[in-house]
Formats: sequence, structure tokens, C-alpha cells
Amino acid sequence: MRHLGAELAGVKAGLVTICLPFRPELTQQHGYFHAGGTSSIADTAGGYAGFTLFPEESSVLTVEFKLNLLNPGQGDWLQAVGRVVKPGRTLTVCQLDVWGIGPDRRVHVATGLQTLICVKDRPA
Amino acid sequence: MRHLGAELAGVKAGLVTICLPFRPELTQQHGYFHAGGTSSIADTAGGYAGFTLFPEESSVLTVEFKLNLLNPGQGDWLQAVGRVVKPGRTLTVCQLDVWGIGPDRRVHVATGLQTLICVKDRPA
Amino acid sequence: MRHLGAELAGVKAGLVTICLPFRPELTQQHGYFHAGGTSSIADTAGGYAGFTLFPEESSVLTVEFKLNLLNPGQGDWLQAVGRVVKPGRTLTVCQLDVWGIGPDRRVHVATGLQTLICVKDRPA
Amino acid sequence: MRHLGAELAGVKAGLVTICLPFRPELTQQHGYFHAGGTSSIADTAGGYAGFTLFPEESSVLTVEFKLNLLNPGQGDWLQAVGRVVKPGRTLTVCQLDVWGIGPDRRVHVATGLQTLICVKDRPA
Repeated sequence: MRHLGAELAGVKAGLVTICLPFRPELTQQHGYFHAGGTSSIADTAGGYAGFTLFPEESSVLTVEFKLNLLNPGQGDWLQAVGRVVKPGRTLTVCQLDVWGIGPDRRVHVATGLQTLICVKDRPA
Repeated sequence: MRHLGAELAGVKAGLVTICLPFRPELTQQHGYFHAGGTSSIADTAGGYAGFTLFPEESSVLTVEFKLNLLNPGQGDWLQAVGRVVKPGRTLTVCQLDVWGIGPDRRVHVATGLQTLICVKDRPA
Repeated sequence: MRHLGAELAGVKAGLVTICLPFRPELTQQHGYFHAGGTSSIADTAGGYAGFTLFPEESSVLTVEFKLNLLNPGQGDWLQAVGRVVKPGRTLTVCQLDVWGIGPDRRVHVATGLQTLICVKDRPA
Repeated sequence: MRHLGAELAGVKAGLVTICLPFRPELTQQHGYFHAGGTSSIADTAGGYAGFTLFPEESSVLTVEFKLNLLNPGQGDWLQAVGRVVKPGRTLTVCQLDVWGIGPDRRVHVATGLQTLICVKDRPA
């Protein structure tokens, strides 16, 4: 995340927001954010959202995720929101959404689902 | 991809391989490749694989993809293979696989599926 | 759907609800609704939800869908809700949710995402 | 499965085939197999494939699955093949493929991925 320049922008129980400011090296051929950045911050936001509900001394791993890319990644920054839909002792399911935030509009860039596993006795 | 340090390692019709050498800034807390790098090169390998079958003067966009993370991203480099399962005039479906390549073994890091759309009359 | 005994319970623009009453032949080994029924009505609810926004003389096909099974399919009936997240001229993305409805509670049985394609000039 | 008329056609360790003969009540508006039947037998084939590798006194649940519908479900019968890609103590990942089998050709109807969980001490 540091490598991308992403920042943790909000942390509540089961709900995490990550922001990724626009940088030229994160764009693809048409000047939009590359899907790789979009999926990285979406996956990370969901992972942290699940982790907020995990017991101490545990760690989180992504089992799988699926992302629908709805609109080009545009705007001054991307905002990824991970929200726990179903917490569980072993598996947790999160909804992932990524928005492109500009001065006067907010575009739904991606929506997805993610399955996390709680790994016990292994601190993050 | 340049930002990640990934390289195009093989291009055939409907089959593309991308390699990502290990770099400390691409790892997560446990020293493995971060899932973000894994999913970025998987998505890119599939996109290029589809693109090899598209008509001239067209461009490729990822509609959606889904990735199962099977093993930690380990080894000297990651190898992502995108393979067209079903080519189409509008939509193309690819299988995505990522392997972690070490001196003496090859680990299946991720497997996935991806839907691409061919955008006509817009050069890549 | 007729074969399953499912019924269209609500139709608004971009939002469709389908109900499937409990029947012994739809259960699996533990007495819950079988995942096959759950995914069938989820897919159908999303398909109809997209179709409500399509132009006349067009038809709908499911490109792909993904479903997370959150809780066993329990209750007197299943309720599947398909909601359009992103309408499009060619592709439409829907969120799918299935609930198990009992006399005194409502259980989130499944959540998913679906990509639909609008096929022009072919009536449904 | 009995309700659909599906039959177990082959069982090896980590590889299961299920067949579903054509029946008018399983078709949708255009005379093809309905996607609901396709996804039901795909999910079941994968579940059984994982189950062949599970320890005794355990049971299998589908955590999630994703299916790309590649071609209309056509032919005399559908053949669903579930194949374990990554076995695990807790989670198992399967590849799902469905083929439409006719007198003189075999059409790739769907491909997908599925995550299973092994539930211990609960016989199937």
C-alpha cells in the first residue's frame, strides 16, 4: 500500500475506507487509474474491515475476491470501502466498493465481494 | 506494470505470460508477495491474452475478474498466465493462473476467471 | 422457475423480488434449501431486474454470476432480490441477495454479483 | 439433484462428473437448458469432487462459486465436471466446467470456480 501511495482514511468496526491519490505512474494507456490499483485498494479495504472484527493474536488472509469494473478509474483520488456483510469465526465476507472522487462528482468505479479467513495465533 | 516492475515474458495467440521479480516493496507483512501485485499481473496477463485475438483498431477493458488465492506469493518471481477460454466478438473469457517460481519449486499462487470486452474503433 | 415453484413477488425499475416456498424436494441432506434453488432464483431475480431497464425488442442473457453462501437456506420461503448497480447499453451489473424468511426471523442466505448482456432485436 | 433428474456419472479422487439429460421443463424461453440447471449441477459436481478428498465423518459446504456462461445450454444432455485445483484441510478450491453434449458436438456451456469448506464431525 505504501508502494502505491494509499492511505487509511477511516476505520470503524467492520467498515474501512482507503484513499489512493491520483499519480501519473498509476494510470493505464487512457489516463485512468489502472485496474491493478483499484483492485489492490479494494482488496486491502476489505481485508482491514474483516480484521477489525477478528480476535487478538489473529491474522487475515484473502481467500478469494471478485470485482466488477463499472466505470473508468477517474478523479483526483480513488476511495475504496470495505464493509463486512457476514462476520464469522473462520470465514468473513465483505462487500467492496471503489469510487472515483473528483471536484464535482463521485463515480462508482468498481463493486465486488471478498472472502477472508481468520488465521488464529499468528499476529498480523 | 512498469511501476510494479513486471515484464511481458511470452505472447502467443490467446496466451500471455507476465513475470514479476521479487522486490521487497511488493511484499506484505509476512514477506510474501502482496495480493495486489498478484492480482495486477493476473488481470494484465488475461487482458493481453484477449487482446491478441481482437481485431485491429480495437481496445480491451476488463469487465470483471475473480481470483482465488491458493498459496502465499512466494519464490524469486511470480509468473502470471492468461489464457483465452472463450473468444467472442464482444466478450472474451480468460482463465488466469499465477505461479510462484523458486529455484527448486513452482507453487500455484492463484487461479481466476476474467471477462473482457472488446471496444471497437478505439486504439489501445 | 415454474419447475421450482418460484413466483415473481415484486417488480420495479431495476429491482425484482422472487419468492420460493419451501418444498421437501428442494432440500439437501440436512433439510435446508439446496444451493441450486438459491442460485437459480438469485440469477433469475437479477436477470429480470436488468431486463426492466432494457429497451423493447431486446432480451437478457447472464454473462456470469458469483454467489457467496452466507447461511443455510432456511425458513418457510426464500426471497431473492436482484438490484441493478450499474445499468448499461450493453452490460448491466446487478447485486443479488437471498433471504430465508421464517415466522420470526430473516436470515441472509446469499449475496452475489451478476453481469448481464442486453441482446438487441431478439424478443425475450 | 433427483428433482432435476441429474445423475452421478463418474467419481475419481478429486474429479466428479454429473449428467443432466434434456427435459422440456428445464429449458428457458429459447429452448436451451436454463442457467439454473447448469449452475446447480456445476456446484454439485464441484462439491462432490472436494468431498472425495475429505476425511471420514466430515461434510462439505459451498462457501462461494462463480460461473461464466459461455454458450447456450444445448444438446441432449449437460455434463458437469468438478475438479479439485487446490485441496486443503479447511478450504478446497475446484474448477467447474459444464458441457452440452449432442450427437456430433460438445459445446463449452460454462466454466467456473468454487470454494468449499470441510465441516468436521458432521457426517454428510
